[in-house]
Amino acid sequence: MLTTTLVLIALARQGEPIQPIVEKPVVNAAQVELGKALFFEPRLSKSGFLSCNSCHNLATGGADNLPSSIGHKWNLGPINAPTVLNSSYALAQFWDGRAKDLVEQAGGPVANPGEMGSTHDLAVKVLASIPGYGPSFKAAYGTSDVTMARVQQAIAAFEETLVTPESPFDLWLAGDDKALSATELAGYQLFKEKGCAGCHNGPAVGGTSFQKMGLVKAYVSPSKAEGRYGVTKKPEDRFVFKVPTLRNVALTYPYFHDGSVWTLEEAVTLMGRHQLGVELAAGDVEKLVAFLRSLTGRQPQITLPILPPSAAKTPKPNAT
Amino acid sequence: MLTTTLVLIALARQGEPIQPIVEKPVVNAAQVELGKALFFEPRLSKSGFLSCNSCHNLATGGADNLPSSIGHKWNLGPINAPTVLNSSYALAQFWDGRAKDLVEQAGGPVANPGEMGSTHDLAVKVLASIPGYGPSFKAAYGTSDVTMARVQQAIAAFEETLVTPESPFDLWLAGDDKALSATELAGYQLFKEKGCAGCHNGPAVGGTSFQKMGLVKAYVSPSKAEGRYGVTKKPEDRFVFKVPTLRNVALTYPYFHDGSVWTLEEAVTLMGRHQLGVELAAGDVEKLVAFLRSLTGRQPQITLPILPPSAAKTPKPNAT
Repeated sequence: MLTTTLVLIALARQGEPIQPIVEKPVVNAAQVELGKALFFEPRLSKSGFLSCNSCHNLATGGADNLPSSIGHKWNLGPINAPTVLNSSYALAQFWDGRAKDLVEQAGGPVANPGEMGSTHDLAVKVLASIPGYGPSFKAAYGTSDVTMARVQQAIAAFEETLVTPESPFDLWLAGDDKALSATELAGYQLFKEKGCAGCHNGPAVGGTSFQKMGLVKAYVSPSKAEGRYGVTKKPEDRFVFKVPTLRNVALTYPYFHDGSVWTLEEAVTLMGRHQLGVELAAGDVEKLVAFLRSLTGRQPQITLPILPPSAAKTPKPNAT
Repeated sequence: MLTTTLVLIALARQGEPIQPIVEKPVVNAAQVELGKALFFEPRLSKSGFLSCNSCHNLATGGADNLPSSIGHKWNLGPINAPTVLNSSYALAQFWDGRAKDLVEQAGGPVANPGEMGSTHDLAVKVLASIPGYGPSFKAAYGTSDVTMARVQQAIAAFEETLVTPESPFDLWLAGDDKALSATELAGYQLFKEKGCAGCHNGPAVGGTSFQKMGLVKAYVSPSKAEGRYGVTKKPEDRFVFKVPTLRNVALTYPYFHDGSVWTLEEAVTLMGRHQLGVELAAGDVEKLVAFLRSLTGRQPQITLPILPPSAAKTPKPNAT
């Protein structure tokens, strides 16, 4: 598969604002394998019930298809869970970019009282108490010591493998003229002409910049999320969010940081109105959506890990 | 693998109260594949967040390792979730046997307000609205019609594949004298001598009968569950529960219908006291636990299904 991808890149059409998704060579397979176990590990949560995969479900495009995620004690989060697929391509993590990379991101939800509800200390204590994890940490890091830095690094290493190459659009990018229908191709031309590609560009078709939601026309949201402002405290960063990836966007409804929009047709119409200041014709919306659907790539085939059992000394799950 | 299992059975030691676990031939592979998707399908729940796998997690022995499961709106259920592994061997389903088989069982949690919180009507409406399920139902059943009977049948067909052959004990049963240590074998002898095998027998080492919890000495539980009494309303069925399987019991803590016991040592001690009227010596408990640990078999290798996306008309998830 890797070879195929590299050939695709070599053949890629030049000068397009979107580049193919690349499967990167795995540097430390033991770290990826450990990270996969930890990604599915409910004991990283206080309740013992929620894992990374609960909200970034690899059966459903790496997202949860909910307006906002359900966390500890059924807390409804303030923002839509972004897909984990191709997330390694983003310039920063979370909608407000408060984590600089996937390693830093992986520590956030574990200790968020409204998400996994645990603490880093408790998570490390739990994992260190599970005999079966010792050999996995040793294989990944040389010693069996469990630290939160290692946990986060391993999860990030696994997440870096979660890329979705070989979408119809990628095949077209690689030179296969038949990979896109006339409508899809017309949609891509509109995507460039109307200005969508100004923000949604790069291999992930997004994730390369922060932009204001409601750039041209104010966007009124039920969400209280204020975006970059929460990180920088600069007034101009209010409602500025990371531009989301459009890879697999047909799978990652509902849309926007507030998860308020359920169809691509409505999302495209609202993007035109609020970000570009145009009222897109129905026919143009249809073509743009056809193009967006061509961005669904080959989904990662994941064999569910078999997690090692707890020991008598393992701290007990606590649902309250 | 199937051939291996059949050879094991042919070679099995005669006259033992426990028989090897058998992988049954798959009759309808399309039904199993559909059932796997439905087993991981969060849209069977009202919230769109909970699937069969949430509580019968195939990463953790087919159970959730919680005293009682977490359901819709974080409801804490009245009883411990039994493992789905080898569940097709049980004489009936649920702790109180209120479902006669896996097909009937699969409909229960979907419509239980404290579990998945949906209704059969809503679940069918959701699945029927998802275009990608049509071909899967057609492949499994000849037409693309979605009915709850078909949904339950497919989930049961998948669950029937969730067996765990080739445990050390099964290898010993098949004639391999070196498959069990002296301690494990001594534990098995005790298991028969002390009377454990009176209830925990058959291929699943349980699941063949209903028995009173606290048969010899009353068992006081924090749980309000009354077992078979809820089904039959006969006074003698109060606190009578299905004897659970001991296959993979090292993975399916905490123990008993109330999930109140976290170690096999304590579980064995309490079983001796309450069911057999004996105070087991520490050395005997150790041997019995060693035997129980030899019942962990080869766990099913499950490739996570890629679920088809919802359509605009699909009823929306509702977390409230």
